[in-house]
Amino acid sequence: MNYEKMTREKLEQERVLLSEQFAHYQSQKLNLNMARGVPCPEQLDLSLGLNDAIQDPKDCFSENGTDCRTYAANIFTGVPELRQLFAEVFGVPEEYIIIGGNSSLNMIYDMVARMMLFGVPGGDGPWFGKKIKFLCPAPGYDRHFKILESFGIELVTVPMTKEGPDMDMVEDLVRDPAVRGLICVPKFSNPTGVVFSSEVVHRLAKMETAAADFRIIWDNAYAIHYVYQDVPLDDIFAVCRTYGHEDRVLYFASTSKITFPGAGIAFMAMDAVNRKWVMPALQTQTIGPDKMNQLRHLHFFRTPEAMYAHMARHAEIMRARFDVVNETFREGLTPYGIGDWGDPKGGYFFSLDLPDGCAQKTYELCHELGVNLTPSGATYPYGKDPRDCNLRIAPTYPTVQELKAAMEVLCICARLVYVNQLLETK
Amino acid sequence: MNYEKMTREKLEQERVLLSEQFAHYQSQKLNLNMARGVPCPEQLDLSLGLNDAIQDPKDCFSENGTDCRTYAANIFTGVPELRQLFAEVFGVPEEYIIIGGNSSLNMIYDMVARMMLFGVPGGDGPWFGKKIKFLCPAPGYDRHFKILESFGIELVTVPMTKEGPDMDMVEDLVRDPAVRGLICVPKFSNPTGVVFSSEVVHRLAKMETAAADFRIIWDNAYAIHYVYQDVPLDDIFAVCRTYGHEDRVLYFASTSKITFPGAGIAFMAMDAVNRKWVMPALQTQTIGPDKMNQLRHLHFFRTPEAMYAHMARHAEIMRARFDVVNETFREGLTPYGIGDWGDPKGGYFFSLDLPDGCAQKTYELCHELGVNLTPSGATYPYGKDPRDCNLRIAPTYPTVQELKAAMEVLCICARLVYVNQLLETK
Repeated sequence: MNYEKMTREKLEQERVLLSEQFAHYQSQKLNLNMARGVPCPEQLDLSLGLNDAIQDPKDCFSENGTDCRTYAANIFTGVPELRQLFAEVFGVPEEYIIIGGNSSLNMIYDMVARMMLFGVPGGDGPWFGKKIKFLCPAPGYDRHFKILESFGIELVTVPMTKEGPDMDMVEDLVRDPAVRGLICVPKFSNPTGVVFSSEVVHRLAKMETAAADFRIIWDNAYAIHYVYQDVPLDDIFAVCRTYGHEDRVLYFASTSKITFPGAGIAFMAMDAVNRKWVMPALQTQTIGPDKMNQLRHLHFFRTPEAMYAHMARHAEIMRARFDVVNETFREGLTPYGIGDWGDPKGGYFFSLDLPDGCAQKTYELCHELGVNLTPSGATYPYGKDPRDCNLRIAPTYPTVQELKAAMEVLCICARLVYVNQLLETK
Repeated sequence: MNYEKMTREKLEQERVLLSEQFAHYQSQKLNLNMARGVPCPEQLDLSLGLNDAIQDPKDCFSENGTDCRTYAANIFTGVPELRQLFAEVFGVPEEYIIIGGNSSLNMIYDMVARMMLFGVPGGDGPWFGKKIKFLCPAPGYDRHFKILESFGIELVTVPMTKEGPDMDMVEDLVRDPAVRGLICVPKFSNPTGVVFSSEVVHRLAKMETAAADFRIIWDNAYAIHYVYQDVPLDDIFAVCRTYGHEDRVLYFASTSKITFPGAGIAFMAMDAVNRKWVMPALQTQTIGPDKMNQLRHLHFFRTPEAMYAHMARHAEIMRARFDVVNETFREGLTPYGIGDWGDPKGGYFFSLDLPDGCAQKTYELCHELGVNLTPSGATYPYGKDPRDCNLRIAPTYPTVQELKAAMEVLCICARLVYVNQLLETK
């Protein structure tokens, strides 16, 4: 059944068959959105307890007696008990943590803006007006790329392997003094689901960079977001410390995919060198983030164990969806010799590699059938997938039934596109 | 009793008397903080209803059916019903409103950062690296000045009159193309309590500026914060529209002094030209602010009338404190021919003008007695009060009894400093 080995005649029969199936789905007028990584209502319901987590006026105070209804500037970096909880759950030193508002993306944006306007410790002043390049493991997160691009930073694509970014290439590229950083999602990566291997983390930590102010934006968005099983990620601060490069790390995370995506708590973490740089600017920018929402999260969870139990409930809901994608692809793509979607154990996405030149056309056909995927190319810098082969699938929002239909549509479309391509080139 | 007209002998007697009173307060070991404008617990209690404003899962949805627990990017500029409420209460067009996080100061900071990095419509590109000046009516808000200063913008002091900034000077200064803006609190100004007169608003709106990208940062922080009576402020958008200068206005406000200072809702408002400029950058910066907190505020207030009633309760609490300041100053300063504190009808502060050269020493003596005021000079650009005469008093946080003691201390200290000054120069 492998399409590549099929005769022209067989392929033409296959095309007729697939076109019939396409017409069948056309008549169904589907309208399914799998473009963004959004939890389903069932997942949101898991956190409804946030709404009454603060029941008593005394719940408005942190343990040290701070009234969190007011500016609470004395706990600028966050409610101490919540910093402690995050430190334990995310495995970062408590004193490194600076809690922010509802969006880690916003914190990343502000960090890059700060680099542009004020420069970075160890560097030669503001980045504004200079040629600045950032390494972008891809497929990666389109919103990361968009932030860097908006500041005029040049994006350098580095291929993702099953272990993380291609480190031979990274080590080569950082010899260029214009390369000032790397941005990544190191665990259950968006969209590949890859967890950086210990070797990758060590090489990122160890490598010498031409730029003295080189920084890694370590967006650990899916730190505790396993679906099938947890895959440990090395402690980036500890490893970098070994090589004397701890100031290289700017760590970000949030509860966006733990509690409410729009109303969670984001934080960043960094060593003393970076905190000394960031804090004065941050304290000019704001009197402080919303600490009532910090208390709300604290009272809702209380303990690391409660947070892990919560994530187990998420995983159960996610697993039903991940199973559908795995099964449908295994039945609808593998037999025809197409499709590589890795083996994600957690995170929020599937990253599907089709034969070269097939991604955009597949995206378009799916769209025609009412199945909206993340636009092809979005997972690459400047929206340009060099091989036009990658599609990101965000399977969490639809129901299991809808997802099943959508994935079947995707398989039909991908096969049709590939069959057409083979017929044209044979 | 007027000190200026007193004989040396009389002044020396007065000094002995004041020194005794000073020693009396010294023995009391007071510890009172009047440094920042912070509501008292009684005021915070007025908004405790926020904590259970969302009772039912269906309360998590906006009227148009958007689930606000998730990113809700379709209502990026805010929950429509809350934008409508703010439009009515603050008197700005609904479509101008972009709701943000918990801090209007943060929105102002980000706005100035945007000006530096990307430039402003009508201008010549990014402000970064250029000589940029901002007009700063003073006494003014220290955190405003600090933001501008942190970006290397030159602060140009413009004296505040009882009507607003000295407009003759403003109209003269804006002939300098390096002057790109003005920052102000137009109503119940921080700290003078002045409300910009209709003439001032019209002259700000009408004046021709050399800079084509001139902007007014209109921080209407105390729009509905009367204490004794409301004093109307002209509609800045409407007036600017008359003169074809509507794109001059960047309007900011928040509920920080309405609900919880640390956990309120901030917004900005601007015409279509500015929205077209700001929105793409904003949508790169964040997927959106916390909309659950928007719903919480919406459900807590529901109607403009409820919001006005809420402000009346604030006013009652504030009035007791404002009365104490007025009375103590009238008894403790006026008879001696010192002290001008205007006649604030609302807002959060008193701005006390002492004889030239007396502010810093008075601040220091108060500090010695455990009464902590905003540092002298803070109300001026670069923290430098040219006449060393102004002190900002934030009377809201202490109890009425504490405030009474603190204001008596202030009067004693101010008189002692002035008596010493007269004795030295006589």
